[in-house]
Amino acid sequence: MAFPRPKPTTMEMLATERHDPPFNVRKMAVALHGSEEALQLKEKFMAELARNPAFKNNDIHDISKDEIRERTMEKFGAMVEFVTTESIEVFTQRMALVGIADPAFWTRFGVHYGLFLGALRSGATPNQMSYWIDKGVLGLNGVIGCFAMTELGHGSNVAGLETTATFDHESDTFVINTPHLRATKWWIGGAASSATHAAVFARLIIDGKDHGVQTFVTQLRDPKTFRTMPGITIGDIGKKMGRDGIDNGYIQFTFVNVPRAHMLMKNTQVSRDGKVTKPPLAQLAYGALLGGRTSMVADSSNSAKKALTIAVRYAAVRRQFASGGNTLETQLLDYPIHQRRLMPLVAQAVAIGFTATKLQAMYEDMTQSLDRLKPTDPNLMETLAKLKETHATSAGLKAFCTWSTLDTIEKCRQSCGGHGYSSYSNLPAQFNDFAVQCTWEGDNTILALQAGRALVASYIGATQGAKLPSGVAYLSNEANLTAKSDGTLSLDDKECGWDCVAANAAKKAAYEYADFRKQGKQKDEAYELCSQSRFIAAKLHTTGYIFKMFKAALADLADSPEKTALTTVAKLYGAWQIEQNEGVFLKYGFLQPSHTDEVQRQVDAFCAETRKFAVPLIDSFALSDHIINSPLGKWDGSVYESYFAQVRAQNPLPKEHPYFKRLIKPLLEREPFKHVDVEADMDLDNELAEMHARMAKSKSKKSRDQKE
Amino acid sequence: MAFPRPKPTTMEMLATERHDPPFNVRKMAVALHGSEEALQLKEKFMAELARNPAFKNNDIHDISKDEIRERTMEKFGAMVEFVTTESIEVFTQRMALVGIADPAFWTRFGVHYGLFLGALRSGATPNQMSYWIDKGVLGLNGVIGCFAMTELGHGSNVAGLETTATFDHESDTFVINTPHLRATKWWIGGAASSATHAAVFARLIIDGKDHGVQTFVTQLRDPKTFRTMPGITIGDIGKKMGRDGIDNGYIQFTFVNVPRAHMLMKNTQVSRDGKVTKPPLAQLAYGALLGGRTSMVADSSNSAKKALTIAVRYAAVRRQFASGGNTLETQLLDYPIHQRRLMPLVAQAVAIGFTATKLQAMYEDMTQSLDRLKPTDPNLMETLAKLKETHATSAGLKAFCTWSTLDTIEKCRQSCGGHGYSSYSNLPAQFNDFAVQCTWEGDNTILALQAGRALVASYIGATQGAKLPSGVAYLSNEANLTAKSDGTLSLDDKECGWDCVAANAAKKAAYEYADFRKQGKQKDEAYELCSQSRFIAAKLHTTGYIFKMFKAALADLADSPEKTALTTVAKLYGAWQIEQNEGVFLKYGFLQPSHTDEVQRQVDAFCAETRKFAVPLIDSFALSDHIINSPLGKWDGSVYESYFAQVRAQNPLPKEHPYFKRLIKPLLEREPFKHVDVEADMDLDNELAEMHARMAKSKSKKSRDQKE
Repeated sequence: MAFPRPKPTTMEMLATERHDPPFNVRKMAVALHGSEEALQLKEKFMAELARNPAFKNNDIHDISKDEIRERTMEKFGAMVEFVTTESIEVFTQRMALVGIADPAFWTRFGVHYGLFLGALRSGATPNQMSYWIDKGVLGLNGVIGCFAMTELGHGSNVAGLETTATFDHESDTFVINTPHLRATKWWIGGAASSATHAAVFARLIIDGKDHGVQTFVTQLRDPKTFRTMPGITIGDIGKKMGRDGIDNGYIQFTFVNVPRAHMLMKNTQVSRDGKVTKPPLAQLAYGALLGGRTSMVADSSNSAKKALTIAVRYAAVRRQFASGGNTLETQLLDYPIHQRRLMPLVAQAVAIGFTATKLQAMYEDMTQSLDRLKPTDPNLMETLAKLKETHATSAGLKAFCTWSTLDTIEKCRQSCGGHGYSSYSNLPAQFNDFAVQCTWEGDNTILALQAGRALVASYIGATQGAKLPSGVAYLSNEANLTAKSDGTLSLDDKECGWDCVAANAAKKAAYEYADFRKQGKQKDEAYELCSQSRFIAAKLHTTGYIFKMFKAALADLADSPEKTALTTVAKLYGAWQIEQNEGVFLKYGFLQPSHTDEVQRQVDAFCAETRKFAVPLIDSFALSDHIINSPLGKWDGSVYESYFAQVRAQNPLPKEHPYFKRLIKPLLEREPFKHVDVEADMDLDNELAEMHARMAKSKSKKSRDQKE
Repeated sequence: MAFPRPKPTTMEMLATERHDPPFNVRKMAVALHGSEEALQLKEKFMAELARNPAFKNNDIHDISKDEIRERTMEKFGAMVEFVTTESIEVFTQRMALVGIADPAFWTRFGVHYGLFLGALRSGATPNQMSYWIDKGVLGLNGVIGCFAMTELGHGSNVAGLETTATFDHESDTFVINTPHLRATKWWIGGAASSATHAAVFARLIIDGKDHGVQTFVTQLRDPKTFRTMPGITIGDIGKKMGRDGIDNGYIQFTFVNVPRAHMLMKNTQVSRDGKVTKPPLAQLAYGALLGGRTSMVADSSNSAKKALTIAVRYAAVRRQFASGGNTLETQLLDYPIHQRRLMPLVAQAVAIGFTATKLQAMYEDMTQSLDRLKPTDPNLMETLAKLKETHATSAGLKAFCTWSTLDTIEKCRQSCGGHGYSSYSNLPAQFNDFAVQCTWEGDNTILALQAGRALVASYIGATQGAKLPSGVAYLSNEANLTAKSDGTLSLDDKECGWDCVAANAAKKAAYEYADFRKQGKQKDEAYELCSQSRFIAAKLHTTGYIFKMFKAALADLADSPEKTALTTVAKLYGAWQIEQNEGVFLKYGFLQPSHTDEVQRQVDAFCAETRKFAVPLIDSFALSDHIINSPLGKWDGSVYESYFAQVRAQNPLPKEHPYFKRLIKPLLEREPFKHVDVEADMDLDNELAEMHARMAKSKSKKSRDQKE
C-alpha cells in the first residue's frame, strides 16, 4: 500500500514560508547574536555537539535516571579539554549553548566550574588559590568540587544555615558538624556520585562565639577509591522534576576535621590563635551573584527561542479545520488566535535576548570597576550605588525572565495540541528542566521583592534629593507620575507610559511603606506589609526595563530590512505588554479606555505582520535540529515522518507481551468467552426496519400536527 | 549523635494551626462535599485504596514506564468488581476519587468504561447494545475496548478524519483502511497493550460517496492469544509528559473487513443494499460531551485541592528568615506575600468545587430531559436552547478551570521552594499528569472560542429580541453595560460588576463580528477575526459564572460558622478575580481608579483572614495522606522526617559505584594525583599577616585622606 502524500507536503509548506523573506536571514541572525563571530562560534559549537557521541539525545526520553546520570558523566571528558584550552569568553559562549542543549550536564559541570571554583575565586586568598590549582582544580585532576550551601531546612536564607564549623585550637582545625536532620546539606549537585570535595557553608564557631557563615573546603571522598572520608555520610536525593543528569545528594557531617587553611580567607580570616578578622567591604559579595543572574537572563531567552522554534515550525505545517469553501485545512499559523498565542512570545524572547546582551555588557563593566576598586577609591560610593542598582535590576530580571520563559515553554507545548504531550516533542522535558530556574539562585518571588525594595528605597531617596543611578533615574522625575499618552501609541509614547506606571507603582509601595513606619512598624515588617505593592512595582519596572533595552538595541542598528522587521517585533512586544497590564495604564491615567481598543488592534495587527516572517525569524534564532531535538520542530518540515520514525525507533514491539498471561488473559476469561465472528449474530436489519417504521409514523404525526 | 529537634517541632506547629478553628472541620467538610453521605463514601473509598496493594504509590517516581503500565493493569482486577456491583452514582463518585489518586489508571480504565462503552451507549441500537453486552463488554469478559478517534494529523477536527470505511456490497462488510501516514490512529489509549476491540471513527464511503464520519467496532486482537488480527498494525507511542500508566498506541488498518452490523447504527444507518439513513436530530450528540466536561470541572477542583493541601501544610511548618528580633524564623504562611501566593488559589479551588456541584446537577437534569425528549416534543426548541447554552458554558468552564488548576499546581510547587522540585513532593507528577486536561476533550483555546462564539450569538440574539436562557440572560439587560459600582465592593456589587464587564466584552466581540460581516467576510472568517475579543468575553463570562455559582452555593447554606468562613473565602475570590482583571473593570467604568486600591486592600485583608483558618480549611478538603502522596503535605506535619525517610528508602546506596572506574577515576588521574592531607601545605598565616599589614596601611591612608 502506498501512502500518498497530501499536496503540498509539510516540507514544501516550510519551504514556502521561507520563500522571499522581507529580510536577509543571515543578517538577522547576526543582529540577534551580536556579531558574525559570535554566530559562527555558535555554529561551530553546535556542529561539535551534534557529532559528539556523548551528546546523542534522541533517546533521552526513554533511558533511566541512572543511565542519564552516567551519560552525563561521560560528557565531562569532552568538555574538560575545552575549559582548559579556550579563553574564558569563548568557553562562556560554549557553555551558554550547552545550557540549552543539555541543561543537566550544564549544571553538573557548572557545579564544579561555576560554583566550586567560583567560591574559590571569590573567597580564597592568592596562596589558597594556587594551592588548589596545584591540587588540579582547574582541570579536574584529582579534584571534582561541589557546592554545599543549602540544607534540608534552609534554602534562600544563607545566614540561617545550621551546619557548624567549630575551631579546635589544639589541632588547628575546624570541626564540621551537622547538628540535626534539618541541617543536612541537601540538593548538593555532584555530591551523590561525583564530587571529591565540597565548598561547605557552615557557621564559624570559636570559643562558643558564632561568627556567621563561612566557607570550608572539605574533602568528601578518597579520589583513589571513591570511598567517603571518615565522618561523611552521603546519600542520593533521587528523582527530580527535571535535570536528572545531576547527581544531587545530601551530606551529613559527623565531627569532621578540616585544616584551618581550608577555610576560604580572602575576606574573613581566622588566625592560629583563633582571632577573627572581618572584611571592610561586605557588599562586594554582590558581584558574584550578578554573573549567575546575567547568564540566567540569557538562558531564558535562548530556552524560549528553542521552544518557539518547535511551536512556530509546527504551526506552519499543521493544518486544522477547513474554513470557508477550502478543501485544504488551514495552517494553524494563519489563525489570528494562534498568532496571538505565539507571536507575542516570539517578541518577548527577542526582547529578553537583547536585554541579556545589554546586561552582560553592564556586568562586565561592573566587574572591571570592582576589580579596580580599592577601599580608598574616590568613586567608591558611586560605584557601589551603581552596583546596588544593577544588583536590584538583575534580581527583577532573573525573576520575571525565568517566569516568562517557563510560561512560554508551556504555552508552546499546549499550542502543539496533543503532540505537545508526547515526550518526543521535547517540550515536556524542556519545561521540567527549566522549571528549577524559578527557584534556584534565589526564589523568584523573593528576588522580585528585593527588586521592589530597592525601588522603594530609590523612590524615597529621590524625594530626599538623592541622585539616582541611570536605570531608576525616571523615579526622580515627578512629571512621569502624571504623564499622559500623546495618543500615537508609538514606541516613544509607550516608553513614557512605562515610566509613568512604574513610577506610580514605586510611589504607591513607598507610601505604603512610609505609612507602616509611621504606624510604628519595624523596617522589615513594614516592607513585608507592602510586599504586594513592591511586587507590582518590581514587575512594572522590570517589564519597562526590558522594553527600553529592546528599544535601545534597535537604536544601535543601522537602517536595514532587518531593523524594519525587528521594529515590528518591538512594537508587538510593547503593545502586548501594555495589553497585559492595561489595568495600571488606565488606573494611573496614562491611557484612556478608548486607547485600550487601539492597543488590542495594534497587537492583532503586529501579530499578523510578524506571522508573515515568523519562520524566517525563527530560523535566525539559529538553533540546529540537534539542539531542538524535536521532530515537531525539524528544520526541513518533515514533522510527521520524523515523529513517526522516532516513536517507532524508541518503542520496538516486545517479543512477548509483558503481562498478557499474568493479568489480561485471566481478566478476559473470567467467564466463557465467545469469539467475535465476522458474521455478526444480531438481527440488525429487522431492528432497523422497525426503527424506520416508528420514525415514519412520528414524522407523519408531526406533519399532521403542523397542519392542524 | 542525637538530632535534637527544634522547638516547636513541625508536628507541634500543625497541631497549633488546628487548635480552636473558627468552624467545625467536619461540618465544613460536609458543606464542601455536599452531604455527610458523600463524605463518608469518599472516606471509605480512600481507605480501600490505601489498603489495596495495587494502589501502593510511594515508589511511583522511581519505577520505569513499563513497570508503571503493568501495575496500572493490575488495578483493573480490583476495580472491575465495583463497576459491576455498584450503582452508577456510587461508582461515579469512586472514579472521581480515583481520578486524583491515580490519573493514569483513571484514564486507562475510563477508556473502556467511559469512551468505548460510552460510544456504544450513544451510538448502538438496542440490539447492538445487547449483542455487545452478551459479548461481555460490561465486565471486560472477553472485550476490552479502546476509542480510536484521533489521528496523527487530526486532533480536534473529527469531521476531517481520513481513515476510510468503504462498504463492500458483496461481503456485507466495511473495509477499514488507513490511506496514508497522517491518517494513522494516534494517541489511542489501551491500543498499545491492552485492548481487544476499538471504536474506530472512519469516513463512511458507499459507492464512492462520502457520508461523513461514523463509528465501527473493530476487533484488534484475538483475546485468546493477544495476537493482532489480520490487517491491523499496532505500535506503542511511548513516553509522555505524564500518565505513563496509559498504554497509548497507534493503529494502522490495511483493508480490514468489519461486518456491517458493527457500525453503530442508532443514528446513521446503512441497509443491506447500502442505503444510508441520516438521523433527524444531529444536535443530540452534544449531551455526550457535557458529561466529560462536567467531570473535568470537578477534577480541576479536586486536583487543585490536592496540590494546595501540600503547599499550605508545608507553608505552615516551613520557617524562613527571622524578622525583627525573633530568634525563630517566620512561618512561610505568616508572610503576606506567601498568603498572596496561596490563599487566592485556595479560594479558587473552593469556588470551582461549588461550580462543579452545580454543573453536575444541571447536567443530570439535562440528561433526563434529553432522555424524555421526542422529535415531536412541544418543548423541543427550548430544551435545545438550554442544552446549547449549557454546552457553551461547560466549554468555557472546562477551558478556564483546567488552566487555573494547572497554574495552581505549578504555583504550589514553586511555593515549596527547592523541595517542590523533588519528585517526592509529588507536585511535578501532578503537574505532568494534569497538563493533558488542557488539551484533550477539546483544546482549551478552541473551547474558549466556542464559548465566546455562543456569547456573540446570544448577544446578537438578544438585540433581535430572542429570550436568552438563564445563564446568559444578563446579556439582554442593557443597563448592565453602563452599571457602576455602588462603592461597597460587596458580593452583590461584585456580581453586578461581572455582569457589566462580561456583557461589555460580549458586546465588543459581537460588534467586531458584525463589522467584519458588513465588510463582506464569511461567517467563519468573521468569527476568526474577532477571536481575541471572543476569547476575552469567554474568560470574563466564565469567571463571573464561577463567582455566581460560589455565591449561589453560599445562599444555600444555613447561617453557621462554616458559612461565615466560606463567605470570607468567597469575598477573597471575588476581590482577587477583580484585581486580576482590573483593566476591564476600569475600562468599562464599573470601577474608578481609587476603587482598585480598595480591591487590593480587600485581597490583602481576606488573605490574612483566610490564613487564620487555612490549615483547618485544607483539612476539610478531606484528602488522605495516601491520596496526597507527598511528605511535604503529611497530615501530622512530620515533613522533614517523612521526606528524608522516603528519599532514603527510594535511593539505597549501590553496592558498587556504577561508573567510578570507567569514567571518574580516569578523569581524576589524568595527571599525578597529590593526596589532600589534613595538614595543608600552604603558608597561609604569613600571607594573612601580609594582608593585614596592607590593609592597615590603606586604612591609615584613608583616614589621612579624610583628614586632609
